[in-house]
Amino acid sequence: MIEKPELDKKFEQLIELAAELEDLRNIEAVLGWDQSVYMPPGGAEERGMQSATLGRIMHEKLTSDEVGQLIADLEAEVGDLNAETDEARMVKVAKRNYEKQTKVPLPLLIESIKATTMGHEAWVKAREQSDFSIFQPHLEKIVDLRKQYADLFKPYDHIYDPLLDDFEPGMKTIEVQEIFNELRPQQVALIQAIAEKQPPDNSFIKQDYDEEKQELFGRYVITRFGYDWNRGRLDVTAHPFTTSFGHGDVRITTRYLKDDGGSALFSTMHEAGHAMYGQGVDKKYNRHPLNGSSSLAIHESQSRLWENLIGRSKEFWSFFYPSLQMLFPEHLGNVSQQDFYRGINKIEPSFIRVEADEATYNLHVMLRLEIEIGLMEGTIEVKDLPEIWNAKMEEYLGVTPSNDAEGVLQDVHWSGGMIGYFSTYALGNLASVQLWDKMLEDHPNIPDEIAQGKFDTILGWMREKVHRFGSKFEPQEIMLKATGSKITPEPYMRYLQTKYGELYDL
Amino acid sequence: MIEKPELDKKFEQLIELAAELEDLRNIEAVLGWDQSVYMPPGGAEERGMQSATLGRIMHEKLTSDEVGQLIADLEAEVGDLNAETDEARMVKVAKRNYEKQTKVPLPLLIESIKATTMGHEAWVKAREQSDFSIFQPHLEKIVDLRKQYADLFKPYDHIYDPLLDDFEPGMKTIEVQEIFNELRPQQVALIQAIAEKQPPDNSFIKQDYDEEKQELFGRYVITRFGYDWNRGRLDVTAHPFTTSFGHGDVRITTRYLKDDGGSALFSTMHEAGHAMYGQGVDKKYNRHPLNGSSSLAIHESQSRLWENLIGRSKEFWSFFYPSLQMLFPEHLGNVSQQDFYRGINKIEPSFIRVEADEATYNLHVMLRLEIEIGLMEGTIEVKDLPEIWNAKMEEYLGVTPSNDAEGVLQDVHWSGGMIGYFSTYALGNLASVQLWDKMLEDHPNIPDEIAQGKFDTILGWMREKVHRFGSKFEPQEIMLKATGSKITPEPYMRYLQTKYGELYDL
Repeated sequence: MIEKPELDKKFEQLIELAAELEDLRNIEAVLGWDQSVYMPPGGAEERGMQSATLGRIMHEKLTSDEVGQLIADLEAEVGDLNAETDEARMVKVAKRNYEKQTKVPLPLLIESIKATTMGHEAWVKAREQSDFSIFQPHLEKIVDLRKQYADLFKPYDHIYDPLLDDFEPGMKTIEVQEIFNELRPQQVALIQAIAEKQPPDNSFIKQDYDEEKQELFGRYVITRFGYDWNRGRLDVTAHPFTTSFGHGDVRITTRYLKDDGGSALFSTMHEAGHAMYGQGVDKKYNRHPLNGSSSLAIHESQSRLWENLIGRSKEFWSFFYPSLQMLFPEHLGNVSQQDFYRGINKIEPSFIRVEADEATYNLHVMLRLEIEIGLMEGTIEVKDLPEIWNAKMEEYLGVTPSNDAEGVLQDVHWSGGMIGYFSTYALGNLASVQLWDKMLEDHPNIPDEIAQGKFDTILGWMREKVHRFGSKFEPQEIMLKATGSKITPEPYMRYLQTKYGELYDL
Repeated sequence: MIEKPELDKKFEQLIELAAELEDLRNIEAVLGWDQSVYMPPGGAEERGMQSATLGRIMHEKLTSDEVGQLIADLEAEVGDLNAETDEARMVKVAKRNYEKQTKVPLPLLIESIKATTMGHEAWVKAREQSDFSIFQPHLEKIVDLRKQYADLFKPYDHIYDPLLDDFEPGMKTIEVQEIFNELRPQQVALIQAIAEKQPPDNSFIKQDYDEEKQELFGRYVITRFGYDWNRGRLDVTAHPFTTSFGHGDVRITTRYLKDDGGSALFSTMHEAGHAMYGQGVDKKYNRHPLNGSSSLAIHESQSRLWENLIGRSKEFWSFFYPSLQMLFPEHLGNVSQQDFYRGINKIEPSFIRVEADEATYNLHVMLRLEIEIGLMEGTIEVKDLPEIWNAKMEEYLGVTPSNDAEGVLQDVHWSGGMIGYFSTYALGNLASVQLWDKMLEDHPNIPDEIAQGKFDTILGWMREKVHRFGSKFEPQEIMLKATGSKITPEPYMRYLQTKYGELYDL
């Protein structure tokens, strides 16, 4: 038993270490943001060196024996790391990070970096030429290395568990499989029913909208949402993202497409959802082991909630549509609010995940998850992927990609070794509706408030139930606390069936 | 005697250390750039933490005993650190930096940080209220701490030497005094002669010029100069500056004033001059002890050359004036090229250094230098500064500030402990003309080239004679090599007398 003052000192040391690491992570994020947003091409080489140097310093700080000993000492004192005190949880989170960083032997780490660097190059080439065989040997290597990585975390219930755990702390493969097995047939059935109906017209959105006015509107919307401009900014990049340099500076980016007036708006709402999570973490967790977020799925629940549950709702557009019409009379002057609402909610099975609508999106994810699990289990071989991919696309979405580029090669993730990531997208969708239902139960007036352009009840509820906790609770804990249930597919299916049942007169 | 392979290994270690430190300094510069250009206000607190953490890591790396031993070992082998090999010079530069970092005891360092933090706050308040007495006790403390700092570097010829050396490696107080003693009476006489003449009209420039067109013109000019946009960019900040994140990314900023159409253009040319120096360092010095620049004065010689010797010349405007008139017909349609040229070269003694023209600028600097030297010697007391300041202003420039804000309190430097910096501004002016004269001797055709909008001979000469060497040579060495003489005032005086003699018909 360590004496109390001695114990306090050790906790101080842990917090100090976390503070320093958070500073360095934030610095890394600044470098990354600048690189994506404003860096001239000539800066790339040296920026790479800067990031590598910073990464090495962080790795050294994170993996020192001293840190391991500190965590071990604290764990011995705290006992139950699942207790709900900040003390127990910060030791748990620190231990988790320490183990993830130290368990990987240097040769495996180096081999993985090499394989993914070459894998990424090969993937770019393969996609350009729409030829999976160029990428195949690299992906085989990457899968093999991921298996070696997973094996470092034995014993596990399932070989996919350690990969999933990197993104969804505490979540098990069996949980995800159960959720998706229940969800899949219902989503497939819904899409088949919709396919038999007359599709709404959305040609008005597939036009060139003035960029400045788009930006004005996007800023207006997320200002009303509650995005804090004093602690953030919006810039333009090739791919939209959110990045945080600490509680006081959480930035987002968007992009404007010439042939789609909706893309920037929905992505801005999406990123603002992520960013408001970051802005909402309790300030006491600044430079603290419990800063951050619960998981990627919980993060995605926030972005999808603002983008879809709010941003594609009737109430939202009853408030905002007149403003949009004012800005774009030539595009929308003759489009009624109802037609606009139907158009932006058009369901259309397509090949590309990132362009998928609310009803088809999860099926894209499930397909990938099944393939990833099969690859890790060894029941699917890399060489068979194009065929398996296309068969599943036909089965779930009723469409077959005409080539590898719009099929198995479309996503960058696997080329970077990111196996275990995809399910977070779908889980985020499910979590968003579950949180939404509970919020409406607590505040039935929310739809009326949205129709008046008011969002403070929503943001306040999310701050209280989700944001403020930082990384203190694992995703299933957050969901249990906030909604009384772990992540479950029923609310999401009910939401889709109600919304699209009405829209498509099913 | 260390064996050759062992020696090579030690040099490799030194270069590796310099590379890592350069990465960290570049990262620090990215943080600073972002803070000045794009950071939302809410980010300030955490950015401060990030910079502090980074600074601490850099300090640790720079001051370790290991580094000291490495430098000592190399010094013993290299022998003459003034030999002109890269090896000798990199040991010299590394030793210099190591000593500057390690000689200051921690208590003095901490007291200095405190004194300048509080000093800066007091200076802001004092300037707002135009009351020197608010700043006086803080400046007394700061001067005392600078004396303690200087004493760490005993023996010295003059107590001001160690301060000057922080900005001008190898330069002595006596050298600067000799230069300025020769220069001062001549500059005063020139200004007095000008004051008796009819001043040209420059009211056309003191108007509101459209910002976008100003930017277009500024970009056009520095593109022609040879500023490499692939390795840089231009943004807007409250105070213009240049910053480098390595050879491949040297950025500049400017500001647009509503009541002065010339400010942004001349500051853009000025900063581009600094930036082209950074872009011109030999690539072999990337992540190397000899990266960087010779000194602040040499840096300033580059910025002043492009801003003044080129940017305020007749030849320059004979090429660019038609374009400027095209952009601003309402402002300049009725202003002849000759009147424009005379207007932008108007000589007008004023209170504020940063707004001073070519002929009066150095006098502002000399005044400060004399005061700084007096403060360090103890022959001037802080409490007497307002009186001394005003008397010197009257003596040199023929004007008397009406209050402390436009007098002794105008510059931020002393509040931050930056004593020793000012002379670099004036030395830069002198060096710029000296280099210019030599360049014209080598390439008499340069004025004609400027009149054709061509600048590659100039930039090429500077790259060859100055830029490529990085920090390998001290300022007086650079000048000796490039011009055959150390910094000397005659060329500058001749330049002023010729140019303004003609302009003012003296």
